Amino acid sequence: MSGASGLAVTPSPAIAAEYQRTRALTEALAAPLSDADATIQSMDDASPAKWHLAHTTWFWETFLLRDHLPGYRLYREDWPYLFNSYYEAEGARLARGRRGMLSRPSVGEILAWRAVVDEAISPLLARGDLAPLITLGCAHEQQHQELLLTDIKHALFQNPAGPPMWDLQTPAATRPGAVAWHRHPGGIALIGAEDGAGFAFDNEGPRHRVLLEPFALADRLVTNGEWQDFIDDGGYRTAALWLSDGWAWVNAEGVSAPLYWRDEKHFTHSGWRDRDPHAPVTHISSFEADAFATWAGARLPTEFEWEAIAQGHDALAGNQLDAAAPPLPKGGTDLFGDCWQFTRSAYLPYPRFRAAPGAVGEYNGKFMSGQVVLRGGSCATPRGHVRASYRNFFYPHQRWQFTGLRLAKDI
Amino acid sequence: MSGASGLAVTPSPAIAAEYQRTRALTEALAAPLSDADATIQSMDDASPAKWHLAHTTWFWETFLLRDHLPGYRLYREDWPYLFNSYYEAEGARLARGRRGMLSRPSVGEILAWRAVVDEAISPLLARGDLAPLITLGCAHEQQHQELLLTDIKHALFQNPAGPPMWDLQTPAATRPGAVAWHRHPGGIALIGAEDGAGFAFDNEGPRHRVLLEPFALADRLVTNGEWQDFIDDGGYRTAALWLSDGWAWVNAEGVSAPLYWRDEKHFTHSGWRDRDPHAPVTHISSFEADAFATWAGARLPTEFEWEAIAQGHDALAGNQLDAAAPPLPKGGTDLFGDCWQFTRSAYLPYPRFRAAPGAVGEYNGKFMSGQVVLRGGSCATPRGHVRASYRNFFYPHQRWQFTGLRLAKDI
Amino acid sequence: MSGASGLAVTPSPAIAAEYQRTRALTEALAAPLSDADATIQSMDDASPAKWHLAHTTWFWETFLLRDHLPGYRLYREDWPYLFNSYYEAEGARLARGRRGMLSRPSVGEILAWRAVVDEAISPLLARGDLAPLITLGCAHEQQHQELLLTDIKHALFQNPAGPPMWDLQTPAATRPGAVAWHRHPGGIALIGAEDGAGFAFDNEGPRHRVLLEPFALADRLVTNGEWQDFIDDGGYRTAALWLSDGWAWVNAEGVSAPLYWRDEKHFTHSGWRDRDPHAPVTHISSFEADAFATWAGARLPTEFEWEAIAQGHDALAGNQLDAAAPPLPKGGTDLFGDCWQFTRSAYLPYPRFRAAPGAVGEYNGKFMSGQVVLRGGSCATPRGHVRASYRNFFYPHQRWQFTGLRLAKDI
Amino acid sequence: MSGASGLAVTPSPAIAAEYQRTRALTEALAAPLSDADATIQSMDDASPAKWHLAHTTWFWETFLLRDHLPGYRLYREDWPYLFNSYYEAEGARLARGRRGMLSRPSVGEILAWRAVVDEAISPLLARGDLAPLITLGCAHEQQHQELLLTDIKHALFQNPAGPPMWDLQTPAATRPGAVAWHRHPGGIALIGAEDGAGFAFDNEGPRHRVLLEPFALADRLVTNGEWQDFIDDGGYRTAALWLSDGWAWVNAEGVSAPLYWRDEKHFTHSGWRDRDPHAPVTHISSFEADAFATWAGARLPTEFEWEAIAQGHDALAGNQLDAAAPPLPKGGTDLFGDCWQFTRSAYLPYPRFRAAPGAVGEYNGKFMSGQVVLRGGSCATPRGHVRASYRNFFYPHQRWQFTGLRLAKDI
Repeated sequence: MSGASGLAVTPSPAIAAEYQRTRALTEALAAPLSDADATIQSMDDASPAKWHLAHTTWFWETFLLRDHLPGYRLYREDWPYLFNSYYEAEGARLARGRRGMLSRPSVGEILAWRAVVDEAISPLLARGDLAPLITLGCAHEQQHQELLLTDIKHALFQNPAGPPMWDLQTPAATRPGAVAWHRHPGGIALIGAEDGAGFAFDNEGPRHRVLLEPFALADRLVTNGEWQDFIDDGGYRTAALWLSDGWAWVNAEGVSAPLYWRDEKHFTHSGWRDRDPHAPVTHISSFEADAFATWAGARLPTEFEWEAIAQGHDALAGNQLDAAAPPLPKGGTDLFGDCWQFTRSAYLPYPRFRAAPGAVGEYNGKFMSGQVVLRGGSCATPRGHVRASYRNFFYPHQRWQFTGLRLAKDI
Repeated sequence: MSGASGLAVTPSPAIAAEYQRTRALTEALAAPLSDADATIQSMDDASPAKWHLAHTTWFWETFLLRDHLPGYRLYREDWPYLFNSYYEAEGARLARGRRGMLSRPSVGEILAWRAVVDEAISPLLARGDLAPLITLGCAHEQQHQELLLTDIKHALFQNPAGPPMWDLQTPAATRPGAVAWHRHPGGIALIGAEDGAGFAFDNEGPRHRVLLEPFALADRLVTNGEWQDFIDDGGYRTAALWLSDGWAWVNAEGVSAPLYWRDEKHFTHSGWRDRDPHAPVTHISSFEADAFATWAGARLPTEFEWEAIAQGHDALAGNQLDAAAPPLPKGGTDLFGDCWQFTRSAYLPYPRFRAAPGAVGEYNGKFMSGQVVLRGGSCATPRGHVRASYRNFFYPHQRWQFTGLRLAKDI
Repeated sequence: MSGASGLAVTPSPAIAAEYQRTRALTEALAAPLSDADATIQSMDDASPAKWHLAHTTWFWETFLLRDHLPGYRLYREDWPYLFNSYYEAEGARLARGRRGMLSRPSVGEILAWRAVVDEAISPLLARGDLAPLITLGCAHEQQHQELLLTDIKHALFQNPAGPPMWDLQTPAATRPGAVAWHRHPGGIALIGAEDGAGFAFDNEGPRHRVLLEPFALADRLVTNGEWQDFIDDGGYRTAALWLSDGWAWVNAEGVSAPLYWRDEKHFTHSGWRDRDPHAPVTHISSFEADAFATWAGARLPTEFEWEAIAQGHDALAGNQLDAAAPPLPKGGTDLFGDCWQFTRSAYLPYPRFRAAPGAVGEYNGKFMSGQVVLRGGSCATPRGHVRASYRNFFYPHQRWQFTGLRLAKDI
Repeated sequence: MSGASGLAVTPSPAIAAEYQRTRALTEALAAPLSDADATIQSMDDASPAKWHLAHTTWFWETFLLRDHLPGYRLYREDWPYLFNSYYEAEGARLARGRRGMLSRPSVGEILAWRAVVDEAISPLLARGDLAPLITLGCAHEQQHQELLLTDIKHALFQNPAGPPMWDLQTPAATRPGAVAWHRHPGGIALIGAEDGAGFAFDNEGPRHRVLLEPFALADRLVTNGEWQDFIDDGGYRTAALWLSDGWAWVNAEGVSAPLYWRDEKHFTHSGWRDRDPHAPVTHISSFEADAFATWAGARLPTEFEWEAIAQGHDALAGNQLDAAAPPLPKGGTDLFGDCWQFTRSAYLPYPRFRAAPGAVGEYNGKFMSGQVVLRGGSCATPRGHVRASYRNFFYPHQRWQFTGLRLAKDI
C-alpha cells in the first residue's frame, strides 16, 4: 500500500464501522445545501460541495471496487473524467477551475451513486488485506469533509446576502490569560509517525531524529482581540514586518484584515456574526502569521518544535467535527482542533521518504514544493483525523481554511 | 418615455395580454432547468437563467411598481443590488462576473417574486399613460428570453457530458439552391423606425434618409456545408482573408470552426447532434463572417442595405420562438428568424439620436462603441420581437448567439 | 499600385526631391536621441525610434529595391524579420512587443543601412512607372515620422526624471473667444479623395456621395482650460456622461485627466512644462472626447461632416512639422495641423473600396475593425502629409498621439 | 553591522585594494556593452547592465558616504529613486519592471558618478569601524557582477540575431567518468559560517548543529549529455517524474529543454555555440533538477548535506570569474565555481537567526519564503565570493542563472 504508512491497521468490524461513519458524516455535512448551493465554485482553489460528494466516491470506486472487486462495472463510464482530482496516472480530467460548471449530475444523482458504491463495497470491508487501503480511503474522505466545509463557506461568502448554511450559536470564548509557554530544552527528538502505531499518511514518515535547539511554544493561540491590536498598530501598513512576498501580496490584494472580517463582524457558516475577541483568530495566510509573529517579538515554530510539544498531548481532546451535528467553532485554544497552526517549515520530504509507485503515490509527495506546513487540525477537521505527526500544507497566500497561529520563541 | 420611441402604443387589454404572454414564456423557457442549471454562469458575457428570471422582474418592480404604484414596497430590499444589470443611475450592483455565485435565492423563491410582481402590476396594465413603458418592459423581457436560451446553451456546453435541456428533433433543412440576389438600384432610402408605427427601441430612430449605392443582397443565408468548404479551403489559416484583429483572435484563441462544432456534430439545446449541411451556419463571430465573405468574393451588407431590402418583408414570416413549446431551429434561410446576420456597420447613433434622461436612457445609447450591428432575429428570438428596423449589436469576437451571415455585393 | 489611389503622380525630379526631403527629416527627428533613447519601447503600441528608422528603410528596400532593382541583394538577410511591421504576406516577424529588445543593430548601423538604400534607390527615382510607389513610400515614412515623435515622447515620459528631447519654448496661445460655428445646410456631399488630384491612401477612396443632415462644426478646438472645467465639474466621475466601454476604461485605469497631465504641468518633448489654458487639449482618448462633448451639450462630428467643412480649407495653413527644426506645438486651433480630431465615425471601408492584392494591400484595409476615425493632422504631422480626405484611425482608448476634439451639433 | 555576520574583518590596506578590485571588475564586465545594450531589460527578474552599474554605486553612496562622510551631498537627488533595488526603509523607488525605461542617465554619466563616489569614499576605506560595512559592500557588488552577466545574457538572447558580447572559445570539457560518490556516515554536523572566520552574509549564520542521516553526494555535476538522455527518454513528457507545480510549469510554458538550448546549440555570451556533451548542464530550474534526479533514481541533496561535504574543499579551486578577462565557462564539474547546484532545501532562517534592524537588515531575511537554496557558485561568480556556507536562493521556476545539479542518495 502506498499513500499511507503504518501497517498495523485492524480489520473489520472496526473498519466497516469507520467506513460507514465516514460516509454518513459527509452526507450529513452536505445535507443543508440545495442542489444549487452544492454546484457553485467560488475560486479555482475550492471545489463545489457536490464535487466533494462525488470525488470521494470516485476514490472508492476506482481504488477499491475497480481494482479489487472482480467483475465490477463503473457506475458511469464518463464520471471518472469529471471527478478525478489530480491523479495523472488515472488519466485526463476536467480542469479544476471548471468544476463549477457541473449542474449535472445533480446532488440526488450523486447520492444514488454513493449508495450503489456503499452497497457494492460491503463485502470488501471484511478483507484484512484491504484494511490499509480502506483506512486510507476514510482518511481521504475526512480531508474532503473539511474541504467541503471550508469551500462552501467561501462560496456562500460570495453572495452579498451572506446566506447561512445553518444557524448555530457559538458559545463565547473564555477570556484567555497572558501566554504561558511550553518550554523544551532542545536535543534530539523523534519526529514522524511511528510504524505500527496506527494509520498515518506517507508524508508523516519515516520517523526520524531531529536536533532541536531550546525553545518555547505558546500554550494558547493568538486571539481575534490580539489581531485587532496588530491592525490598530498599523501591522498591515508596516513593510518591515513582512516577508518580501507577503508585502507584495498585501499590496496587490489590498489586504487589511483576515479573510471574512468586515467591520465588527465576520462571516461564518451561520452567516454574519459578531467577532469574539477571545476566540482564536482564523482565516489568515502564512504571510500574515509571520508578520504578526515578528510584530509580537516572537516567531513561528518549526513543524518539528510543534510536534515535539504535541507528542505529549491527546489529539482527541480538541474541538473537532463530529458525527453529531457539526459544532463549528467553539473558540478554544488547544493544540488540536481549534485551527490549523502555521509553522515556518516548508513542506518537504522527511529523510528517506519515497513516494509509492502508482496513482496513490501521487497523494502527497508531488506537492512538496512551495507550500508551508500547518499542524494541529481545526474545528472543521473530523474527530480522530489528526495526530501529533499530521502534516497539512498550503501555499503561503491561502487562507480560506481555518488557519491561525501559535507563537514560539528561542530560549 | 425613454428607452423606446414610437408613441402610438395601444393600451389594454392588448397590452395586458402581451404582458401575460411574455411573462409566461420566460417561465416556460426556464421550466426544464434544475435550480443548479439555472444558477451556473459559464463566462462573464453570459448570465445564469435564474438571473434572467429575476432581472426581468427587477425591471418591472423598479420602473413600474416602485415608480408608479403609490405605496408599493420592494419585495426584498437587497435584491436590486443582485439583479440590476447595468443601470448606473440605479446604483451599485453585483459584478457581472459574479452572477454565478447566487445559489440563493433559489429558482422557486424567484418564481414566487415573479408572481407577487405580476399580481401587483395588474392594475397598472390598464393605464394608457404607462402603455409605452409596459411595451418597453415586454420587449426587454423578450430580449432576456433569447439571452436565457443562448446563455444556458453555453453553460450546458461546458459540461463534458453535454446534457440536453430538452429533446427535440430538428427537421432536415431543404437543400438550398445557388444564391439568388435581391438587387437594389441605390438611391435615397428611409432608414429607421417610423414614428407612430408601433413599438421600436430608441436606437432604431430617428428615421432618416441614407444614400445607397447599387448593391445586391443574397436571398439566403450561408449554410453549414458552405462553411465546411471554407474550412476545407484553409479559411482559418489564410491571413489574407482576415481583418487584423480577427487574425489575432483566431490565433490567440486557436479558432478553427464555429463555436459548438466538434467533428461531424454540433452542440444544441438537445445535446450533441449531427450537423445539417443545408441548415444555416450559426455561432460565428463577426471576424469569421467577414473572412468568409472575403473568401467568397463578396462582402457583408451595411445595416442600411439590409434594412432597405427587409422593408418589403414580413418579420412574422420567420422562424421565431413562440409561446408554444420552443421549436429551436428549423434551419430555414429567411431574412427574419433563422439567425442574426452580421452587417459591416458599426453600432452608432443615427443622426439626431439622443438618449433619454434617467435610467431607462441607459438602455441602448451607451453601448454605441466598439460593437457591430446584426439584423434579422434568430430562431431564439420571440415571435413579434423583431422588425426591419431592429438593431442588435455585439462585439466582433462574440459568437454565443445564433449568429450567421448573408452575403452582399456591389452591382 | 495598391496602397494608394490617385494615379496623377508627377515623376522626378519633384519625386526625387520629395524622397530626399522625407528621408532627411526622419534622420533629423532622431538626431537628438542617444542609441539607448532610440532603443527603448514603452508599450506594445509604441515602437523604438531606432525601429522607425529601420522599418521605413525596410519598406524601401523591400518594395522598391528588391522588387524593382534587378540584382539587388538585401543589405542584411536577417533584418526583414526584425523590421517588417505587420505585412503577413512578407513572412514571419519579431513580435511587436519585443521591438525594445533590439539593442543591436545600433542607430549608427541603421543609419549606414539608410545611406546604402538611399544610394541604391537613386536610379529608380526617375522612373515614372514607380512614381506612385515612391510617393506611397514617402507618405509611409511621414507616418512613421509622426509615430517616432509620439512614441519617443511616451518613452521619455516613463523616465521619472522626465528628460527632454530638446529644449523649445512654445509661444503662448492666444486666448480663444467663444466658439463660432461653421454651419452646413445638409444635402449630398462628395466625400473622399478625387482621382487624379494627387496622392491619397487607398482608404480615402473611392470618392462617393454621402447624405448629410444640417449641422454645425465648431470653428476651434477645445482648450486645456475648458478641459479643466470638465474635470472640475466631476466629468471623470459622472457615469452618465460616458459610453459604457469608456466608463469601464476610466475605472479600470484610474483615469482622471489627459495623458501627460500632472498638477499644473504636462509632459512635452521639452520635458515638464506649464500647461497653457488657451492651447488645445491633447492626448485624450475617444472615450474622453465623447464624454466631454456630452458634458458640453454637443457631440462629435461624423468624419463626413468634418470633411465637408474641411474641403474649403487649406491643409497647408496648419501648424505641421517641417523640415526646419521640429517646432512642436504652437497651440493653434486650426482644422489642420494642431491635433488629430476625433469623429464619431467608426473606421470602415467606403462603398466599393477593395484592398489591393499583395503585401501593400495590407496597408489600410485590414485595420477596418474596432477603430475610430480622426481627422486633420497634428503638430507632429509632417507638412504636406494631410488633406481634407485623410483618415487616421486608432482604438478608442489610445491617447498617446496628439489627439484632441472639435465639437459639432445638429442645427 | 547588519547584513553580514563575522566581525573579524581586517581593515585597510587589504580592504582598500578589495574595494578597488571589485569596482574595476564591474566596469570591466560592462565594457563590451553599448549604451543601448546596457539599457534594455528582458524581463522583470533581470535588470539592465546600466542599472547594476548604478545600483552598486547607490549602495556605496547611501550606506557609506551619506551615512558616514560628514557633509557629503548626494551626486543627484533624484537618483536614489531610480537605483534603490528593494530597500523599503530607503523609500519609494522605480518599479522593478520599469528599469528598462532608463535610457538616461547614459552609461557614461553613470561611470562619471562611479568615479565621483570612488574618489569620495577613499578616506573611509582606512576606517576600521567601517571595515565590515565595506566588506559587505564589496560582496554586494560581486553579487551584482554575476547578475550583470546573467541578465545581459538573457537580454541578448531576446535578439533574434543572437549577438555575442565577446568572442571567447570555451575549451572542450573532459569526458567525465561514471559518478563516484562522496560518502558521509551521518551524525551531527556544524553548519553555517563560523564567527570570526572571515566575511559571511547574515543568512549563513548562526552556525549551528544539524543531524544528518548517512548519505552520498556525487563527485561531479550532471552533464549536457546526460541531460540529453533525460530528454530522449521522454523526461519532459512524463508526469510521474515531476513535482505538481513543476508539471504545471512545464505545460504552461511549453518547456522541453534547458533555457538557451536550440537544436544542437546553446546561447552563450559568445553567441550561439555548439553544446559540449561533457560540460555540466546549466540554466535549468529547480523543477527540472528535481525531475531529473527522480528519473536518475537519485535525489537532490539538502543544503546541509552539500555543506557537510563542501567543508573539506577549497572554494578558490573553482572556475570563477576573475579580474583577468572573464573566462566564462570552462566546463568543469567542481563543487565550487562551475554552476549553482540546486538543493532540496527551502530557503529558511537558521535557528536563532534574526535580521538586523534598518535598511541593511532587508538584505537577506525578508526573502525567506518560497525560494530554494543553491550552493557552490558558478562560472559567473567572482573569485573569492563563495564559500562552503554560502547560500544562494531563487524561485523554483527561475533558470536564467548558471544553475545545474549534483545528485545525492541515501546510503
